Amino acid sequence: MTAIDQYLATNAQRFEDDLCELLRIASISADPAYRDQMHRAADWVARRLGSLGLSVEKVETSGHPIVFAESPRQPGKPTALVYGHYDVQPVVPLDLWVSPPFEPTRRDGNLYARGATDDKGQVLTHVFGAEAWLKAEGKLPVNLKFVIEGEEEVGSSGLEQFLADHADRLACDCVVISDGSQFGPGRPAITYGLRGIACFELLLTGAAHDLHSGTFGGSVTNPLNTLARMLAALVDDRGRICVPGFYDDVVPLSRREREQLAALPFDEKNYFAQVGVTGAVGEEGYTTLERRWARPTCDLNGIWGGYQGTGAKTVLPAQAGAKFSFRLVPDQRPENVGKALEAMLRRMCPPGITMKLVSQHGSPAVLVPLDSPYVQAAARAVEHAFGRAPVFTREGGSIPIVLAFHERLNADALLIGWGQDDDNTHSPNEKFSLADFHRGIRASANLWEELSRIPAKR
Amino acid sequence: MTAIDQYLATNAQRFEDDLCELLRIASISADPAYRDQMHRAADWVARRLGSLGLSVEKVETSGHPIVFAESPRQPGKPTALVYGHYDVQPVVPLDLWVSPPFEPTRRDGNLYARGATDDKGQVLTHVFGAEAWLKAEGKLPVNLKFVIEGEEEVGSSGLEQFLADHADRLACDCVVISDGSQFGPGRPAITYGLRGIACFELLLTGAAHDLHSGTFGGSVTNPLNTLARMLAALVDDRGRICVPGFYDDVVPLSRREREQLAALPFDEKNYFAQVGVTGAVGEEGYTTLERRWARPTCDLNGIWGGYQGTGAKTVLPAQAGAKFSFRLVPDQRPENVGKALEAMLRRMCPPGITMKLVSQHGSPAVLVPLDSPYVQAAARAVEHAFGRAPVFTREGGSIPIVLAFHERLNADALLIGWGQDDDNTHSPNEKFSLADFHRGIRASANLWEELSRIPAKR
Repeated sequence: MTAIDQYLATNAQRFEDDLCELLRIASISADPAYRDQMHRAADWVARRLGSLGLSVEKVETSGHPIVFAESPRQPGKPTALVYGHYDVQPVVPLDLWVSPPFEPTRRDGNLYARGATDDKGQVLTHVFGAEAWLKAEGKLPVNLKFVIEGEEEVGSSGLEQFLADHADRLACDCVVISDGSQFGPGRPAITYGLRGIACFELLLTGAAHDLHSGTFGGSVTNPLNTLARMLAALVDDRGRICVPGFYDDVVPLSRREREQLAALPFDEKNYFAQVGVTGAVGEEGYTTLERRWARPTCDLNGIWGGYQGTGAKTVLPAQAGAKFSFRLVPDQRPENVGKALEAMLRRMCPPGITMKLVSQHGSPAVLVPLDSPYVQAAARAVEHAFGRAPVFTREGGSIPIVLAFHERLNADALLIGWGQDDDNTHSPNEKFSLADFHRGIRASANLWEELSRIPAKR
Repeated sequence: MTAIDQYLATNAQRFEDDLCELLRIASISADPAYRDQMHRAADWVARRLGSLGLSVEKVETSGHPIVFAESPRQPGKPTALVYGHYDVQPVVPLDLWVSPPFEPTRRDGNLYARGATDDKGQVLTHVFGAEAWLKAEGKLPVNLKFVIEGEEEVGSSGLEQFLADHADRLACDCVVISDGSQFGPGRPAITYGLRGIACFELLLTGAAHDLHSGTFGGSVTNPLNTLARMLAALVDDRGRICVPGFYDDVVPLSRREREQLAALPFDEKNYFAQVGVTGAVGEEGYTTLERRWARPTCDLNGIWGGYQGTGAKTVLPAQAGAKFSFRLVPDQRPENVGKALEAMLRRMCPPGITMKLVSQHGSPAVLVPLDSPYVQAAARAVEHAFGRAPVFTREGGSIPIVLAFHERLNADALLIGWGQDDDNTHSPNEKFSLADFHRGIRASANLWEELSRIPAKR
């Protein structure tokens, strides 16, 4: 990789200057006042990709445009699809910014600007990683597609539609996403799993209207008492979820995964201190990180009913309700959870109560096998660039677009974030480490070579 | 009682006219605009009692005045204290009244006016019952005291203070209260028991702020899950309350009471239909009326926490809370329940949760023994006047002033209401059956004679 190394060294300053150029465009997707800036940013990205010899299309959507680019097709080589976004979060409160959000400023080895790490700086690492190959070697070792959208911060509805309509154009062997953080400073990470989710709302109705709890209490079923009983029955004393069959489809954590999670430099005491508690209960037999990333949960998200004001009101409420959600792991299906849940709650529903269970959104978990050749390729690419092997992490939350890629394209997703947890994503003084920016470019250039050694699927 | 009978017959029309006079005074205690009318009503009552030869005092309070009157002391005779109130509820919405609220109007054997049954018409039955004795026989067969307040509809704070300061002046053998309903038309009732109450608020705090339920769920204790567990643990599958020692002081229902309750013409299907349900669950082994009047309860009165809006929000809330209350029966003490409850919940409180239990108001139950001579005397008096033996009922709620009399004066309370459930108390078109008005006067006159046969306590 001497020619590549040489190219990266020679162009390091220019990469930063290019990033600053993009960061000066105030592409705030949430605010219609910035509509022109959205087009300016999309055009900038399109021009940059076009200048590398990729075919580029600015795809109009119901919202902001998607930039879609493809490298000249090389048969027999695997295809990687790079996903990222050129839109940024709003910048209020402005007075908390040390330097203006759209005037990129270097301080202490970081570049400060809105979008520096989320996601302009990170997505450009892959553009520059591709550029190095094209300029220094004349061609890419793999086929590359870029999908860079302008609605990540506002729900990605245009991209979801594009995926639904044009999955064939996006066909690939793996999806590469750099839009997150490392495990810590100098600790690069590959996130190989995301939990799924199943959300529900439960509504219970008793009497036709609120009753006096003295006159009627004891003789009329109280929907709030019933609600507490039903919700408490969802989880047992050992933190196990009691919906019948809930664990039937759960893929157990492998010994290797548990060893890897246990080996992470995770400071539990510090973790609890950060959220303001001194300890926690959870599913018996699992560590905090396992509970957080790799085990299913049942969390009540909201509850209401009766009198919520000051003092006492001796009312027997007519209605009560709650919202709750399950985080799912492979291979649980939200629809199966919903069916078993409804049957369980219906069996518990006593005389005098009418029950309504609303199934809200749900999506299954995503898990890229640790022994996937793409994950292994990414690990080597990252280790070579960062000088340290990445740790393998999972995320407790869901990222809908990752699931959409997974389900629409049937391609493993490589979540390799170059940021840090303290990058102030979505907050004032967003930053990106310039060292990580350059390591990211290097890792990207490495990644294309590593992926080229894997036989193409199609 | 021939002279009495004669007097009641001769004066029947005048009693109605007198009641109408008092009903024309708009003594709405809640509205400061009616302050003058409050004094007019108090003065009317004071004059009426004074004209019978009783010593009368208009006791000023922090709110509206109390009319306190005493008959000339006859040593060796028992003393009855009549409690009632001259204040009335507001009259909005006015347009729903068929005849104006302060223009008493006879229709279908009823007298329509605000205060007709609650409580001017009912309290005057005892004034006229006393009058009959004083005018027809020259003296009362018992000692009588009258306490007629003007703040019953706004909390009785002046009377509570008067009781605290002057329990000696109110000393009596029994308290007579007609401010409620019969069991049904032609079914007079004596209420011999009221449940007590103990109210609590439970607040649980977890993390320092709301957390993302994906990122943190499973690894941080959820206060809402904990709240549901705690609240569900208060009552078991058989409707029994699980606070340790909760039933230790409960006086079991006697076989006689259960038989009497079972013999009441209570239409359960109709009861459920009225509140809009088709059935109910409750404490196993007890009937609906027993559960409603004579067994303790635990009812959640309010609950809150997390997201209560539309749709789903995958939040792990930082706080959750609930209000709940226990209805108590003899001889349970609210303070004992509170102590056992707090210990139980503290034992359940898991790592990661801070718990605060606020004890709100509490009061014990009131129960007049069914074999009390005062109850038996009242039963005979009522049967003689109404032509049918009264049924013995209990009430599920608390009446604070009854408890105050019970505790301050150590006197049995006789709750003998002459009204009907459909009298529109607190609603437009309040009414009082004129037949019941006259039967009430007759029962009152009978009562003084019946009570005179019981040896005086002091």
